[in-house]
Amino acid sequence: MQTLLTVKSHFSAAHRLYRPEWSLARNREIFGLCSNLNGHGHNYLLEVTVEGPVDPETGMILDMKELKALIDREIIERVDHKHLNMDVPFLEGVIPTAENLAVAFWEVLDPKISPGRLYEIRLQETDRNTAIVRR
Amino acid sequence: MQTLLTVKSHFSAAHRLYRPEWSLARNREIFGLCSNLNGHGHNYLLEVTVEGPVDPETGMILDMKELKALIDREIIERVDHKHLNMDVPFLEGVIPTAENLAVAFWEVLDPKISPGRLYEIRLQETDRNTAIVRR
Amino acid sequence: MQTLLTVKSHFSAAHRLYRPEWSLARNREIFGLCSNLNGHGHNYLLEVTVEGPVDPETGMILDMKELKALIDREIIERVDHKHLNMDVPFLEGVIPTAENLAVAFWEVLDPKISPGRLYEIRLQETDRNTAIVRR
Amino acid sequence: MQTLLTVKSHFSAAHRLYRPEWSLARNREIFGLCSNLNGHGHNYLLEVTVEGPVDPETGMILDMKELKALIDREIIERVDHKHLNMDVPFLEGVIPTAENLAVAFWEVLDPKISPGRLYEIRLQETDRNTAIVRR
Amino acid sequence: MQTLLTVKSHFSAAHRLYRPEWSLARNREIFGLCSNLNGHGHNYLLEVTVEGPVDPETGMILDMKELKALIDREIIERVDHKHLNMDVPFLEGVIPTAENLAVAFWEVLDPKISPGRLYEIRLQETDRNTAIVRR
Amino acid sequence: MQTLLTVKSHFSAAHRLYRPEWSLARNREIFGLCSNLNGHGHNYLLEVTVEGPVDPETGMILDMKELKALIDREIIERVDHKHLNMDVPFLEGVIPTAENLAVAFWEVLDPKISPGRLYEIRLQETDRNTAIVRR
Repeated sequence: MQTLLTVKSHFSAAHRLYRPEWSLARNREIFGLCSNLNGHGHNYLLEVTVEGPVDPETGMILDMKELKALIDREIIERVDHKHLNMDVPFLEGVIPTAENLAVAFWEVLDPKISPGRLYEIRLQETDRNTAIVRR
Repeated sequence: MQTLLTVKSHFSAAHRLYRPEWSLARNREIFGLCSNLNGHGHNYLLEVTVEGPVDPETGMILDMKELKALIDREIIERVDHKHLNMDVPFLEGVIPTAENLAVAFWEVLDPKISPGRLYEIRLQETDRNTAIVRR
Repeated sequence: MQTLLTVKSHFSAAHRLYRPEWSLARNREIFGLCSNLNGHGHNYLLEVTVEGPVDPETGMILDMKELKALIDREIIERVDHKHLNMDVPFLEGVIPTAENLAVAFWEVLDPKISPGRLYEIRLQETDRNTAIVRR
Repeated sequence: MQTLLTVKSHFSAAHRLYRPEWSLARNREIFGLCSNLNGHGHNYLLEVTVEGPVDPETGMILDMKELKALIDREIIERVDHKHLNMDVPFLEGVIPTAENLAVAFWEVLDPKISPGRLYEIRLQETDRNTAIVRR
Repeated sequence: MQTLLTVKSHFSAAHRLYRPEWSLARNREIFGLCSNLNGHGHNYLLEVTVEGPVDPETGMILDMKELKALIDREIIERVDHKHLNMDVPFLEGVIPTAENLAVAFWEVLDPKISPGRLYEIRLQETDRNTAIVRR
Repeated sequence: MQTLLTVKSHFSAAHRLYRPEWSLARNREIFGLCSNLNGHGHNYLLEVTVEGPVDPETGMILDMKELKALIDREIIERVDHKHLNMDVPFLEGVIPTAENLAVAFWEVLDPKISPGRLYEIRLQETDRNTAIVRR
């Protein structure tokens, strides 16, 4: 039996999908409206799931207050109310698709979670699409 | 690490659960109110999840616009505002339970998804029940 | 200061929008896909709001258990898992648009609510459209 | 009895709250993180409510397909995947707070709705705040 | 034209509905399971709506950060993770029905909101019932 | 291909997180506000997922009416409108964290589900945290 805990966070950010070495036409073909010059934005819903045994003393896999503080400090404070192409050092050079953001968040959080270990990151960009990274 | 992308679609349809070779009493016993003579209906929520590596050039598993167009063309346009027992050729002879619909949608979509491959179909019939097909 | 209480209920039903005295073409022009021959369906969300003073003894405008039982008996049991064009005596001759359903439900419930009085009926047909009747 | 119809639409956009004639410090004091230099963004939920009598022939206040087409053409196509401070002619010079956006959308839609008349615009910026304009 | 702003907050609390001067049987008859001896609890959703003119300088009815801080300080910190019958001085002697809580919150907030004035409090106790107080 | 069915249920309950053999200070350090003396409460959302083959006769993994009746009888009726620390025999001695509740519900339901077998229990305590037990 696997036991897991999921916590949800929100942030609001701007982004633009484009590759500078591509023409505008190719950017538009691949990224559609998401390549518009001045960017657009989303309310992102971030779900972080940790797996691990339930500590019999506390009844918890890990301290949820500490997990939330970690996610706030490492992710939310660095991306909330920011432009993801310009304002976030750990995203420099990353095309901020939902998939790439989820992978980047995984790399930030994975080494820092304990006890237990990171099992899944879900990043919902709109209520019609979600990227998932899973161990 | 597994990377996945989920997209959501909606459709509204009528259906009736019954087996013609069973008596009305047996249909009522097995299918309950869902066997009522003139059918009823739902707003279905369809979630399609594709797994595959993230293309380093685009930052995407596959082109979400193309995935949505595929789901619209192959599923939504054929079931939306339809009666699932009468109007949908690929459901002929299928009792339109949520499980059977999810399996039928899997069979339609699975050979057509590329790059990546179909990982999961979730079909929510009401906000109290959901059928899932997973590789 | 106005005080009100809202309760929510759900039902799933089939319907078809069409006028028998119109041609198929005119039905299609006015009602679009909703005029398809074999009908389709929805998960309806019904919100009933009652206004009235808060009883100082109970802290309630009216007994919520009784209000829910009334809505179940007078509306939900008569429309849930039914075809709204064929199975519901109090909807006979009514084109089952969200507006007409909300008005019909108002007429059924309005004389029966006490203490307090009916203030509003909201009927959500899909998560994109809702009809409202308000005193 | 008042009868109304509400339709919902979504758009995703970037914005920045600041007054150019104010200092950065004053902008930060009034607008908080919303004044960040490179902007941020949201998934907006727009609810448009029209009031009017129900047409006895159609059972509808107005043709919902036409209402949605109007909102798409006049609002959604002009703001979706845009930067609200830079890309939208009818918002030029407007600080794009939720309140100002709702008022601006009202002014665009109000003269164009018929039959019935515009009753309310709700603009949800995040699931924690919503601006409302009501007749 | 009326302009309004709604902000949402959450709190989790225990409560019990009963009148000490009534018998257990009468408490059970009026309050049902809500009168159970050791109480139960809910995740409450509180929506506070303020009406007022939009300040042409800021584009805001009032400073949303200040409004949220007021609601947090005056309501949320005093009721969140509390037992509403025992732990909240301003609810002493109040049967904590949704209606009574909404009225009590109105009385706390109404004198403190400026600019603009309190227009509505909605308190959702479960996703099936909501109490509303409106000017 | 794995086929699964998920059903959702709700209950409202009070709880308190604390270990009697720990000091108040240590309880507060580990459990935070959840250790408050008189308890607090939540609207819990319980999702039960069963895996198994789809019966070709019925189109169902198992009879959903029976599954819901089982969950109601074994779980919901025993925890709804209760205090989880005091009123529920099968939770005696259990610190009612979301993780421990999900494990306890698993142990109650797992031997009783047939046909198919229990695959997952998700217990959402607030819309920010969810515990999961999975085979």
